[in-house]
Amino acid sequence: MSRLEVMPESVPATPNHRPPRALNIGEYLIQRLQDYGLRDLFGIPGDYILSFYAMLEKSPINVVGCTREDCAGFAADAYARVHGMGAVCVTYCVGGLSVCNSIAGAYAEKSPVVVITGSPGLEERVNNPLLHHKVRDFRTQIEVFEKLCVASAELIDPLVAFREIDRVLDACYRFKRPVYIEIPRDMVEVVPQISQTFHRVTAEVDTQAADEAADEAATLLSKSQKPMILAGVEIHRFSLQDKVLALAEQMQVPIAATLLGKSVVPERHPLYAGLYEGAMGQEEVTKLVEESDCVLVLGAFMTDINLGIFTANLDPTKCIYVTSEQLRIRHHHYHGVPLDDFLARLAARKPTPKPRAVPAVLQEPKKPFVLESDRPIEVRRLIHRLDEQIDDQTIVIADIGDSLFAATELTIHQRTEFLSPAYYTSMGFSVPAALGAMTARPDARIVVICGDGAFQMTGMETSTIVRNGLAPIIIVLDNHGYGTERFLHEGEWKFNEIHPWKYSKLPLLLGGGTGYEVRTEGEFDAALQSAWSDRTGMSIVHVHLFEGDASLPLKRLAERLKQRV
Amino acid sequence: MSRLEVMPESVPATPNHRPPRALNIGEYLIQRLQDYGLRDLFGIPGDYILSFYAMLEKSPINVVGCTREDCAGFAADAYARVHGMGAVCVTYCVGGLSVCNSIAGAYAEKSPVVVITGSPGLEERVNNPLLHHKVRDFRTQIEVFEKLCVASAELIDPLVAFREIDRVLDACYRFKRPVYIEIPRDMVEVVPQISQTFHRVTAEVDTQAADEAADEAATLLSKSQKPMILAGVEIHRFSLQDKVLALAEQMQVPIAATLLGKSVVPERHPLYAGLYEGAMGQEEVTKLVEESDCVLVLGAFMTDINLGIFTANLDPTKCIYVTSEQLRIRHHHYHGVPLDDFLARLAARKPTPKPRAVPAVLQEPKKPFVLESDRPIEVRRLIHRLDEQIDDQTIVIADIGDSLFAATELTIHQRTEFLSPAYYTSMGFSVPAALGAMTARPDARIVVICGDGAFQMTGMETSTIVRNGLAPIIIVLDNHGYGTERFLHEGEWKFNEIHPWKYSKLPLLLGGGTGYEVRTEGEFDAALQSAWSDRTGMSIVHVHLFEGDASLPLKRLAERLKQRV
Repeated sequence: MSRLEVMPESVPATPNHRPPRALNIGEYLIQRLQDYGLRDLFGIPGDYILSFYAMLEKSPINVVGCTREDCAGFAADAYARVHGMGAVCVTYCVGGLSVCNSIAGAYAEKSPVVVITGSPGLEERVNNPLLHHKVRDFRTQIEVFEKLCVASAELIDPLVAFREIDRVLDACYRFKRPVYIEIPRDMVEVVPQISQTFHRVTAEVDTQAADEAADEAATLLSKSQKPMILAGVEIHRFSLQDKVLALAEQMQVPIAATLLGKSVVPERHPLYAGLYEGAMGQEEVTKLVEESDCVLVLGAFMTDINLGIFTANLDPTKCIYVTSEQLRIRHHHYHGVPLDDFLARLAARKPTPKPRAVPAVLQEPKKPFVLESDRPIEVRRLIHRLDEQIDDQTIVIADIGDSLFAATELTIHQRTEFLSPAYYTSMGFSVPAALGAMTARPDARIVVICGDGAFQMTGMETSTIVRNGLAPIIIVLDNHGYGTERFLHEGEWKFNEIHPWKYSKLPLLLGGGTGYEVRTEGEFDAALQSAWSDRTGMSIVHVHLFEGDASLPLKRLAERLKQRV
Repeated sequence: MSRLEVMPESVPATPNHRPPRALNIGEYLIQRLQDYGLRDLFGIPGDYILSFYAMLEKSPINVVGCTREDCAGFAADAYARVHGMGAVCVTYCVGGLSVCNSIAGAYAEKSPVVVITGSPGLEERVNNPLLHHKVRDFRTQIEVFEKLCVASAELIDPLVAFREIDRVLDACYRFKRPVYIEIPRDMVEVVPQISQTFHRVTAEVDTQAADEAADEAATLLSKSQKPMILAGVEIHRFSLQDKVLALAEQMQVPIAATLLGKSVVPERHPLYAGLYEGAMGQEEVTKLVEESDCVLVLGAFMTDINLGIFTANLDPTKCIYVTSEQLRIRHHHYHGVPLDDFLARLAARKPTPKPRAVPAVLQEPKKPFVLESDRPIEVRRLIHRLDEQIDDQTIVIADIGDSLFAATELTIHQRTEFLSPAYYTSMGFSVPAALGAMTARPDARIVVICGDGAFQMTGMETSTIVRNGLAPIIIVLDNHGYGTERFLHEGEWKFNEIHPWKYSKLPLLLGGGTGYEVRTEGEFDAALQSAWSDRTGMSIVHVHLFEGDASLPLKRLAERLKQRV
């Protein structure tokens, strides 16, 4: 099922769906989550949320129990990236405060995740007793999440509880950022004595500003001799991939993607030029973008890593910069113009820049990989081999470090996706994210590329993967420690070393899956082929790299970052 | 080395130790941590903290690298409980926000942990760029930790950086709660151009109030016919164990402990009566406490679990209630009287209550454990067997759930300690806490008692235990899920089930340690004996319990808690 099918542009108001009898607060929340297309949810139960868990278990929503809350948060994030919205449900403080980092990452990278948490009942709080799990006072947890979410609500008043749920879920949907809902345990089954009119919040479009902006952008584009589109992660989040591609095709303008936006366009499309990363990226792509006299930047965050650690050289006087948060043409700003609205108005004006082709050098098919069976594995060549394996149904999830940098060289196919926390860069995202992505897309083939340090953080979420009979291929790139850091701070530091696990033995501990341990290209090739043909369960491939091996992108990045550490 | 030896009551001011040359901010922090007796520190490096890590690696402080930040936080917490102060050092946001839950637990249970985190350099922040790891703005992380710590500082101004370090570390030491220090990476090596006078903050004692309170308390105690002391966790934290015991001996008054305070008194001492847990505890102890006409409550938090889910029946008109935060006699309060100061003044007055003995029934030696080799293991009998094994050098660490409740029935010896997050009750504390406790007390024998659910959260920190050649005995009580929750919310719920790991296979993955899998008493006995005699490495004992097995304390607790869920 594609994301667009389950996420209609206009979310139906609940009344159409609601059964005639009055719902209690817990039931209303469950119903509203389903209205947004949510079919699955991740979490861990605990005593302040048990009655809501019991309600969930009886509902159509599938609850995926995880081993740790932070993993549930990453899984919900990945589910949201693939499916449109995700949710994590945990108990008070010991649960909630364990997802802070995952939710911070979802905030930073715009992933719409709903955090649902229980809390002590209002009746229990009289006289401010020291109830277990309480930190400082009863509001500590919500005060923390107010820093990490775009909207939050404590459902402490039945009179406004439904409206609060609507407001917060709507903010999640509109801003593509995490939100927080806290239900005191004695409120879950309360039936509000009010009529349940759904109050839909709509974003106001300043139509005059929108028309003026679209006019100006169309004029600039139509004058352009060397036009360019640079597409970022928001094009994924707002499901605008097809519209951006249609605009590019209509104008015959090449598209580059930012690192965080990778896979926004099918990467074998004739208009796709590659990743733009300033001085850190492929020289021809950088040239194509920076020589442009009119760059239409769509939904891209201007982060350090996206900008090649600020080596990008984008002249603002040549840019039309549009995100869900701002619209800037040259040096002036328009307010009140949503990203999708602007795109539609711009397309309607049919701008006519001079058609521009992607240089032939960027369109050349890659050289076939020539296996050297006894050659020790290098990450660069491993990615080349993997590139020939992935197909239209593959989702690649890259963890932080060289897993990400090396994987940028993969060519992502038509309906494939590439997931990575490329801005917030939290290690350990990939394995729990695989759980989330597979739950959203059981048909897909998931390939995880993960460093040994990252795997040691969250790799045990393979437990839930095995438990649910899922069949990802997890490639652990073992360079004996925090490899990227070795490139950032020169010297032989003990703190970059970690304990060597025998990752291929993991199936013995979990009672499922197949482990491979490989050192040569021949061994990797055999393991990959075997894993690829095995849909019965998880495959984990432990790849020994020699210390100091690194992809070209990492070497370039490290060179730049090092100057700042 | 005992805690008192390394934590002098008056911490020497730094100038006495300081080498003649001017220190930079990083060096000053490292020096001051050592002044507080800190020899080890836990954490994970990351690019915003790399230069400080490099400085640490060259310093006398031993850095223990963990697999995950939250585990580093738990380890630092346990280290603090055993050693007097602990520290965790992590990178910005992806690191810091991953320790929120551990630090919240340290706040709730009063454990003095210093959180040290890097952050983007001040120079980099101009124009508010989107640097990697940033969430909302550059202050997001400190704003979160202000909710979870008793003091915090951003070292952004060299002029006051040393004073800020002094202020924050002093607050950690005085309040026994976590504190937060953030160092922008370009401040680490800055040498402030000021004279480095240590500015010691001293708590003001209201001596008149203190004398009045001590007089009143001594008078009440001297009139008492049935005196009682109830000692809590702060007696551990402020290292007042010997003083409380001396006072009890001087007055010949029995002592009970709260659950969170367990092991505050050697449990075979003739004046030790047992754990007081209201209606949930042993009937004779409850009677002894509640029949008292003058209960001296020392350093105890009045939490739900400590109070047997509020079944405790302590008449305030008969209580002298003293903690580091308040002093209440009957219904009136004294302000400005620290706990240790009050204790000293009270002891000096030599109160003379009627001596009272611990009832013989509470002093009876336990019946010897009679092994029934083929009998399936029950947690109650397992604890009985273990009770005969532990000795003066054992530290018992109990995780949450029946691990804790069952373990309350252990008799803790003279110089033994019992660690558990019995108030905040965060699952997964025990294995990383074992790492922390062993780092602080390499001479001790550590026994971890941990449920399967808790082990799946953080048990992989055994990686660091194996890496460092430590030899704890980890007992995994496997009841196939979140066993305690089954008692809290009736019904057969899928959400309480977890994936069965083969815990005894863990040594294969980690390349170290010995695994045991046991189902009968005979097998457990053999495994325990073998593990006990093995000091070469970690032992992990996978104990299969039948579903529904539970200790008596858990059954009683669940009965009460269930009414509130």
